[in-house]
Amino acid sequence: MQQFGIGLAGMGNVGAGVYKHLVQNRALLRERLGCTLEIRKVAVRDPARVRPVDVPASLLTTRWEDLLDDPSIQIVVELMGRKEESLGLILGAIERKKVVVTGNKALLAEHGKEIFEAATTHASPVFFEAAVAGGIPIIKAIREAFIGNHIQSIHGIINGTSNYILSRMTDAEMSFDEALREAQEAGYAEADPSLDVNGGDAAHKAIILASLAYGFWVPADRIFVEGIESLTTSDIRFAKQFGYRVKLLGIIKSDESRGIEVRVHPTLVPEKHVLASVNGVFNALAVKGDVVGETLFYGRGAGQDATSSAVISDIAEAADALVSPRRNLGFMPHGLYGACRPIDDIESEYYLRLSVEDRPGTIAQIAGILGELSIGISSILQPESEDEGSTVPLLLMIHRATNRQIQNALQRIGLLACVKKPPRMIRVEHFS
Amino acid sequence: MQQFGIGLAGMGNVGAGVYKHLVQNRALLRERLGCTLEIRKVAVRDPARVRPVDVPASLLTTRWEDLLDDPSIQIVVELMGRKEESLGLILGAIERKKVVVTGNKALLAEHGKEIFEAATTHASPVFFEAAVAGGIPIIKAIREAFIGNHIQSIHGIINGTSNYILSRMTDAEMSFDEALREAQEAGYAEADPSLDVNGGDAAHKAIILASLAYGFWVPADRIFVEGIESLTTSDIRFAKQFGYRVKLLGIIKSDESRGIEVRVHPTLVPEKHVLASVNGVFNALAVKGDVVGETLFYGRGAGQDATSSAVISDIAEAADALVSPRRNLGFMPHGLYGACRPIDDIESEYYLRLSVEDRPGTIAQIAGILGELSIGISSILQPESEDEGSTVPLLLMIHRATNRQIQNALQRIGLLACVKKPPRMIRVEHFS
Repeated sequence: MQQFGIGLAGMGNVGAGVYKHLVQNRALLRERLGCTLEIRKVAVRDPARVRPVDVPASLLTTRWEDLLDDPSIQIVVELMGRKEESLGLILGAIERKKVVVTGNKALLAEHGKEIFEAATTHASPVFFEAAVAGGIPIIKAIREAFIGNHIQSIHGIINGTSNYILSRMTDAEMSFDEALREAQEAGYAEADPSLDVNGGDAAHKAIILASLAYGFWVPADRIFVEGIESLTTSDIRFAKQFGYRVKLLGIIKSDESRGIEVRVHPTLVPEKHVLASVNGVFNALAVKGDVVGETLFYGRGAGQDATSSAVISDIAEAADALVSPRRNLGFMPHGLYGACRPIDDIESEYYLRLSVEDRPGTIAQIAGILGELSIGISSILQPESEDEGSTVPLLLMIHRATNRQIQNALQRIGLLACVKKPPRMIRVEHFS
Repeated sequence: MQQFGIGLAGMGNVGAGVYKHLVQNRALLRERLGCTLEIRKVAVRDPARVRPVDVPASLLTTRWEDLLDDPSIQIVVELMGRKEESLGLILGAIERKKVVVTGNKALLAEHGKEIFEAATTHASPVFFEAAVAGGIPIIKAIREAFIGNHIQSIHGIINGTSNYILSRMTDAEMSFDEALREAQEAGYAEADPSLDVNGGDAAHKAIILASLAYGFWVPADRIFVEGIESLTTSDIRFAKQFGYRVKLLGIIKSDESRGIEVRVHPTLVPEKHVLASVNGVFNALAVKGDVVGETLFYGRGAGQDATSSAVISDIAEAADALVSPRRNLGFMPHGLYGACRPIDDIESEYYLRLSVEDRPGTIAQIAGILGELSIGISSILQPESEDEGSTVPLLLMIHRATNRQIQNALQRIGLLACVKKPPRMIRVEHFS
């Protein structure tokens, strides 16, 4: 029976999980794959560190370069999660025609184009199922299952940490800070949670999904990203009153004129839509294709085990690709779609929260500005005041308008004497 | 650019969809696949019939055998949905090393073993994504994405017609007959709906899923199948009162002693579980693996477009397999799992509805029988009577017991003088 050698770079949480499950489910993999997989080297920073999995000392090395130099390694699994070193390892492996498996979303979002140009030059594949949504096979779904579809939209809850925080802010009415602290204590958020709560991590994943769906590497500076840090419990409660839940969504769409849009921001999702009930650290993606219609994928988006499942399926794919070289090297570039539309041109519906003086004429002034800018109001709510004194919240649901229009309106409304704080805006998505 | 010839057998609903979308999305497929696909023959029963898609007369033939004889056809797409003829076409194609794509679930459930033995002999793959759950890529997920997982369970809503009927019985309190009639008028149920409502169609799909998950073709006579025909609106309403929805589920599980269980029956699903809110003709599958944990897939399980998406992804897979012959021919048999456990040994929780005399001592008699048989009661409800006279409904939720135990109890309870009609039992599933 054919045997393939694996070099594993990185023995953090996911690396340890991959090692553990490759060993535990060895018999099953052999039967289903028709070959055996053997881990031949493991590159770590500190070989002396005590690890939850028992890796023979003879496999350990501190030099990731050793994986490249070892001719018995045909599959390089990059789980270091670094930048220069990970890129060096991946490009080095491609040059030596070793198949690459990586979960490095930041690297792919930034260097995807370069990596797949090298992959094409050397006809050596790079697989990256673990880079998006952990155990959910969304990369395979878009790349293979929906190959005959124009992807019309993807709406994804693709950051478990922020979804956990939003779930707690919604269900337990915690503040952002309280929910973040709880997430950190539960191990769902890191000591430095910036990349999770500022939308950066979700943006990496959105870039990868959009690039796969539309055949070109979407430049990071062309997408719109907003995090959840400034969301308040009142906004979440008001949204509920309108029949919505607030979720951090990665949104990817293509319109008929062939422009695409990629954005990450807090979003009001109708409570009846299944994405609204995805809670805690779970991820979910609603994918709409012109042939398949609406589909949804749900599962654990992070964590040792779920992510290991994705890495192992890529290792299996890598073994297959070594037996029979394939045309699709993990990413098929093409020029059928146009560029990324700037956020200013993108239309959305909106939720607005204003703090206004509680006196006659206020609503008329605000509605006047919106009317002048041809922005339609679909609903107005003036809830019981929470503030003391004469300031009250005023909530508006706004019909479709471009970002340019709404920003213009917000600026003018913010200058009104009756408006006491900077207006707060959250985008709204409906699903047809 | 390489070109592959397709022979399409069957121009019904799905066949027409495949033809239409292959033509419409030709450019996209070419870019993503790196080759072109050309339909070279279409086998139909009646070439004179007017079709919704415009197939050139030169492609039409009434003999499916012509697809086998044409050396320019490398991919045979079997969508005739017949038995002997479909089997003849598939086996004939395998012998000639043409790659097969089929959505024929009945045929696979019955002849899967034979078909894949032939596929192995001739090293020629057979793909069948369209056979289960339409546009949801569940075959690919189990075969490839979860290759490193022992599949612990699959709970699937895999028959859209019966899910539509149950949804209408639940939401609109229709009777089974009324809901069935509505489904037929809406085109969601056929004139002869037997195979949909008696669980037969779901059983075919459950057999395919179980076989794929556990590496051997599960014999049809070893699985338990019960349909939805005898469900009443009262059962559905009572289930609601206990916090459940009634769904026709395909249930597949493996236990640690390596026996597997495969069954299809109406099931009480906790209303909080996402499967409970899958309504109408949609399908959904909750898959639990020992590495990936809980996942869920949702989408259209039938219909021209969704099913075409699956067929086209298989055609793409077929083109790939022609370029680089693969080890996995669509199904990898192995002997790691044991046989199918008989229903009598399978444990479940249960909902029981009895029609009893409204007088003292009745509950004691029934509880006595259950107690003697070591069957635990988790909850009892005696709702307001709907019947006239002295007969009232009595509802019991029963703790885990084997089918043997519960059938024994039902028989003895049915013989009690105070029990006026045959007891009604529905199985209950909880999800940890």
